[in-house]
Parts: sequence; structure tokens; C-alpha cells
Amino acid sequence: MNPTLTTLMAHRSIRQFTDQPLTATEVDTLVTAAQHAPTSTFSQQYSIISVTDPAKLAVLSDVTGHHWLEQAGHYFIMVVDQYRNQQLVPATATTTANLHSLDKLLAGIFDATIATEAIVTAGESMGLGSTIMGSILNDAQRVIDLLDLPPLTFPLLGLAIGHPDEQPEQKPRLPQPLMHFTNGYQRLTADDPTLVAYDRLITDYYHARGSHQREETFTHHIISEMNRDPQNRATILTTLQHQGFLVD
Amino acid sequence: MNPTLTTLMAHRSIRQFTDQPLTATEVDTLVTAAQHAPTSTFSQQYSIISVTDPAKLAVLSDVTGHHWLEQAGHYFIMVVDQYRNQQLVPATATTTANLHSLDKLLAGIFDATIATEAIVTAGESMGLGSTIMGSILNDAQRVIDLLDLPPLTFPLLGLAIGHPDEQPEQKPRLPQPLMHFTNGYQRLTADDPTLVAYDRLITDYYHARGSHQREETFTHHIISEMNRDPQNRATILTTLQHQGFLVD
Repeated sequence: MNPTLTTLMAHRSIRQFTDQPLTATEVDTLVTAAQHAPTSTFSQQYSIISVTDPAKLAVLSDVTGHHWLEQAGHYFIMVVDQYRNQQLVPATATTTANLHSLDKLLAGIFDATIATEAIVTAGESMGLGSTIMGSILNDAQRVIDLLDLPPLTFPLLGLAIGHPDEQPEQKPRLPQPLMHFTNGYQRLTADDPTLVAYDRLITDYYHARGSHQREETFTHHIISEMNRDPQNRATILTTLQHQGFLVD
Repeated sequence: MNPTLTTLMAHRSIRQFTDQPLTATEVDTLVTAAQHAPTSTFSQQYSIISVTDPAKLAVLSDVTGHHWLEQAGHYFIMVVDQYRNQQLVPATATTTANLHSLDKLLAGIFDATIATEAIVTAGESMGLGSTIMGSILNDAQRVIDLLDLPPLTFPLLGLAIGHPDEQPEQKPRLPQPLMHFTNGYQRLTADDPTLVAYDRLITDYYHARGSHQREETFTHHIISEMNRDPQNRATILTTLQHQGFLVD
């Protein structure tokens, strides 16, 4: 296996960091790696905000509930950004109506998400660990206000990154026959023997791991996720519209 | 620079391939790399469909307008998938209502998009080249029918991958001061000198490159994108709702 495959296959999320911050050169390298990733129609429809102000990190800690982010070596907010491209266009030149569309929102989401994964991989190759945080969407409006985000931008993902101070076990992934198909979708039933075997594997993983041992199957994990109160995420659509997306 | 950073920094989209198909082992390695990438709340909310049937590839070629995809060494469709997790849940156990939410749709989009970038990077480390295709959204319903996709799934991105038969120049990215900020968003104006310099850089790139030379600036490219008829994408929202997303 080549070093990049070894890096990709060794991924785990890191939530405990040493107190060593990232250097400016390391941050620059991570952003440069993100910039070289694919971008939809070469439109570069995202921006990256480094959050270094402790008071702002405390707000993000409160929004996400992940208080350990304040101890990370660095923190990025990955932003969908159609605002910059709108600014490029002379007022008389064209209509910018399609920047408000679902199509362009998705393009910005692709760009920002691909850039996030590029930073995760680049960081891991440099000995850094990270956790992607969808939980900034618990209160996207508060993040928008915190970072003074203009219309046609949206804070999509947080990324805590730093020098790892833990080495967690890797969670076993679904067997490929349950998630990789050829020429058409294969429907799964709950009594599929491959799934039953996978549930047992997840049970063994949670028994064997060094910390936070618990009784768990993948099925039970999914049921727990479904029962989580989605109330705090119900405002995402309203916030997107407030930012100028999906308004036609 | 370590080999993974070298791989990430060397990315370019590849649209011309030799006639050498990927081996089953190579496809397996790419899917395994995707599986090890981060997944939101460990819910693995995506599936991958390999399209090998020439008749189905011809349909995708028609949907995307990228007829060269039929010559790629392999073709993946990356699918948002909340259906599998819904199937795991006994009918009496819980409500699956939140699988229909924007929150869970976004989680599935994150998972599928992150997995796509992991395959791009894994492939490049193996000497393969690829192009991500958002253009399957030109007619998402046709792709759904083609691959027999069940409710709570959505075909998000195509990925053509194979052995490169071209070595295109790399497009220069935005200067970092225009897209990486600290503690808050920095608004851009169209006469920003950094932007003017970047526009000149893009002009030089299009003059210098080996093929498809043209007169172009980044600003002009963005204006062209805005003027593209978005009509064929207007059905994305309807198709998402038809698949059971965003229906409450």
C-alpha cells in the first residue's frame, strides 16, 4: 500500500489534543491542500475562516456542545460562499439570480465539503488528527453573526485539528456488499445475514475498545440517532433562506 | 513535502483515459478508502454504485453531456442513502421521521461528498485520474430510474476514474487572502488589487496551456457560469421531495 492509501485507511476522528498549536506554516499548507482539491465548474465557491479568538471559540464550543474544541491546535469553519463570486460581477453585466438556486447551493456544499476532506487527509499525513463538526448547524445563525458572514454564504462544517493526544480504535465499517453495488441498488432487509454479522462486529468493537465501552450494535446506534430530538436543527432551512439561498 | 501532500497538491481533473479498465482489486481499494473516510455520527449514510453496463453508461453520458465518461476505466455514482438505515429499524421500534429532514439530507450529502474526495485522492496516489460530475443532476430522476434507487436515496455525484491519457496544466487557485480569513469574513470588492492580479494570472494560464486556449479571466469565467441556463436543474428540489427528503 502506498503512503497516501495508508494515511486514508488509518483515519479516525481525534478529540483529544496536546497543547501544541499549529504553526502558521502548517495552517498555510492545509489551506493550500484544500485549494488544490476539485471545485465545481472551477468556481471556488467556498471560503475558510480560521477561528483563533478564545471568546469566539467559546461560542462555537457552546453551539456544538463539543467543549474540547477549545483545546484543539487550530479550528476552521468551512463556509459555502457564492458571495465572493457575486461581488466579482459588475452590476450591469448579468443577472446573479442563479447564485440563489439549490443547484448553486449544492455546488458550494460540494466545494466546501471536498475541501474539508482534503484538509483532514493532508493533516493526517502531517501527523495531525481532526474531527469534522456538522454540529455547528445546531445554531447556524449564531455562527453567521459570530463571523459576520454576508448574504450568499453559509457556515457548513467546523473542523478541529491538532496534535493527537489519543489513539482511538478504528470503528469497523459496513461490509462492502451492503454499500457497494453494481449497475443498480440492492435493497437490504433487517434480517440480512451480512448485517447480523456486522451488528455482532460492532458489539465486539464496543466491548473491546479502551474507553467508553458500551453495549451497542450498528442497528441500535442508528435507532438512537433517529430518536435524537431534531428540534435544534429545524431552523437550518430558515437560516439558509435568510442568507439568500432557496428563495425563488 | 510528504507523498500525500504531493498527491493532493498535484490534483487536476482528467477527462481522457487509456483503454485500460480498473481491476476488481483497484475498485475494491478505492471503495475501502472511501469507507475509512469520516462519516457523520458514524451513520454511513451513503452507498456507491459501480456502473459497468455500457447501455447504462450511455444514459449517463446523455444526462451529463460528458460523452467521454464511456471511455473511463471505471464509473461510480455516489448516492446519499438514508434508506438502508431506515430498513435497519424494526417497524415498532421508533419513528424514522427525522430521516426525511434537511438535517439528515445534509448528513448524507457530507458522507457521500467526503467519500468522493477520498476516492479521488486514493486514485491519484495509485496513478489514476478522475473527474467528479455534478452534472448527473441535469436529470436526477432519470438516474434514479436507471439505477432503481429506492426512497430516501439520491444520486449526488458521478465519478469517472481511470488511467490518464493526458497531463493538463493545473489551474491557478485564488490567492489565499481572498478565501482564507481569521475570526471573521472579509468582504471583497471587484476592484481589489489582489483580484485584479489573479484575473491576469488566469488570463496567462489560458494563453499558455497546451489545448483549449482562450481569452479568459476568473471574473469572466464566473459571469459565464451565472449566465448558463439553470433550467435543467430546476427540478432538483422536486426530485429530492419525490425521494422522500424535505417533505414535512
